[in-house]
Amino acid sequence: MGIVISLDEREKKSGASLDNLLALIRPDLERTNQLIIQRMGSDVTTIPEVANHLISAGGKRLRPMLVLATAGMCGYKGDGHLKFAAGIEFMHTATLLHDDVVDESDMRRGKIAARMLWGNETCVLVGDFLLGHAFKMMVEPGNLPCLTVVSSAAAVIAEGEIMQLNAAKDTQTTEDAYMEVIRRKTAELFAAAAEVGVILSGRPKADIAAARSYGMNLGVAFQLIDDALDYGGSSAKLGKNVGDDFREGKITLPVVLAFRRGTESEREFWRRTLEKAEIKDGDVEIACGLMKKHKALDDTIERASHYAAIARDAMEIFPPSPSKSALLEVLDFCIERVH
Amino acid sequence: MGIVISLDEREKKSGASLDNLLALIRPDLERTNQLIIQRMGSDVTTIPEVANHLISAGGKRLRPMLVLATAGMCGYKGDGHLKFAAGIEFMHTATLLHDDVVDESDMRRGKIAARMLWGNETCVLVGDFLLGHAFKMMVEPGNLPCLTVVSSAAAVIAEGEIMQLNAAKDTQTTEDAYMEVIRRKTAELFAAAAEVGVILSGRPKADIAAARSYGMNLGVAFQLIDDALDYGGSSAKLGKNVGDDFREGKITLPVVLAFRRGTESEREFWRRTLEKAEIKDGDVEIACGLMKKHKALDDTIERASHYAAIARDAMEIFPPSPSKSALLEVLDFCIERVH
Repeated sequence: MGIVISLDEREKKSGASLDNLLALIRPDLERTNQLIIQRMGSDVTTIPEVANHLISAGGKRLRPMLVLATAGMCGYKGDGHLKFAAGIEFMHTATLLHDDVVDESDMRRGKIAARMLWGNETCVLVGDFLLGHAFKMMVEPGNLPCLTVVSSAAAVIAEGEIMQLNAAKDTQTTEDAYMEVIRRKTAELFAAAAEVGVILSGRPKADIAAARSYGMNLGVAFQLIDDALDYGGSSAKLGKNVGDDFREGKITLPVVLAFRRGTESEREFWRRTLEKAEIKDGDVEIACGLMKKHKALDDTIERASHYAAIARDAMEIFPPSPSKSALLEVLDFCIERVH
Repeated sequence: MGIVISLDEREKKSGASLDNLLALIRPDLERTNQLIIQRMGSDVTTIPEVANHLISAGGKRLRPMLVLATAGMCGYKGDGHLKFAAGIEFMHTATLLHDDVVDESDMRRGKIAARMLWGNETCVLVGDFLLGHAFKMMVEPGNLPCLTVVSSAAAVIAEGEIMQLNAAKDTQTTEDAYMEVIRRKTAELFAAAAEVGVILSGRPKADIAAARSYGMNLGVAFQLIDDALDYGGSSAKLGKNVGDDFREGKITLPVVLAFRRGTESEREFWRRTLEKAEIKDGDVEIACGLMKKHKALDDTIERASHYAAIARDAMEIFPPSPSKSALLEVLDFCIERVH
């Protein structure tokens, strides 16, 4: 399994990319990948099969990259960052496996969802296995403050998932309530990843707080752009994956905005399709049309840019360095992939 | 929520009990219970509801008791043992929640299974929340060797569960294969609980190994007695919970023994009921009859006594103390509850 970075056409056209970041951390990322493969091994053969299905399925390894890049920026010399990079990817993979069960998804990262191939039971248990091994691996560097960060993140992520489940299919969700969910469910792990690299390097509190703020706001921006992409992004072009969130009845920021800005009959459309899950042919196109009419996607991207700007300012206390520049470029990459 | 120790009639008649152990650790157990209640709190109200359903449902708190008693036996003076006691109970509760989803159980500890009340999704996520908080809490005492033990246990338990799932409904399972499953899935957490109390106290390797051996063999004995009780125990009396494992098609040691010792037509009975899940009225009675005919329950109890004896010998290197005596009495209690 090599380093898998899938850049689709849209991404290639944009100016910002992950290339500079990758060039800086490539040896560490390769060692992280080796660690991932080694630690997902088990004499219970189902485990590497399922884990490999997800881990090699073309994730961008964004979270491990944050650990490696922030450690690199701070001049970290040990190899504890590899354990945290691999451990955080395991935590992420575990939540994907459990999410598939919770969402009853058929697809994940463009492949058949693991639960369709191995069943819900196996996905729950392989997720637990990965979580257990994540902690086992992250205990090894012997850094207690880092362990506090990642274990707190594990609890917060689960809370975010439950909040999302409770608010599921509720078109009345406010923007604030939605932001609270994605901060916990998505951004918290980005924050932990960025923070850990700096803590490992023995940096002062202000630097740790800066990295956390960068990770948190990048995570929020990343999720909002994902939400916009699910309805075709700024061009609202209907690509192959457009409408997945819609068909699953997920309330995301574009929906929150379109619902609030909509007429009563438009709100009835959102209630029918998302709350009652009565979706007819052509409804995805209508949904995208309403998004366009109310500038819901443009404004979701606008909101994402706002959080990216906060992340950028948080980073300013670090002196100039190639790692810092590469981390700032991740923010542009994150936003530009939508155009 | 008080300290819940449910002693049923059978248990009261036996000589050994948990009373001496309880008397020694009562203040610590009360503080552990307070910690459990405090840490399962969340502003996401579903979480304490679901967690409380299980945690207050009459578990014996055996695992926390092992942490507290081994720490007490070694003269531990801090309060890190409370965090590990509560954390290990959270780990146990998380596996119960995930097990319910995996087993598709309707009942758990004599109550309606949480998944029937809140759904599979919530059970998966509340389990994850408890696991996250377990680690967060166990990081707090700052003891890395203890963290290695509990995080390794988390990974091993998940492996055991997956092994069990893969071997499910296979009447050809050998006793060795079954033992391997219960060592990982049940006994590993007993071992970790006993070990942690000794590690916290700064005791030498030999003492840690002794406590681990005690916990591991107690855990195995405990599970085997549970297996025997599910078919009515040594008296093979048909109580209210008899036959749960049978109806769920679980392969346990009594089945392994009865199947191997059975005639071909008896084996066909086990294949029909457990592998094909074709269960008719009167089949539970037939199963209990076959257990009796082949002394499958008596010999399961015999095997359990063998492991309890190993646990007893492991403890002998500790000097006499009330805590040691109480821990040895747990072994008798574990076996005698079957009679």
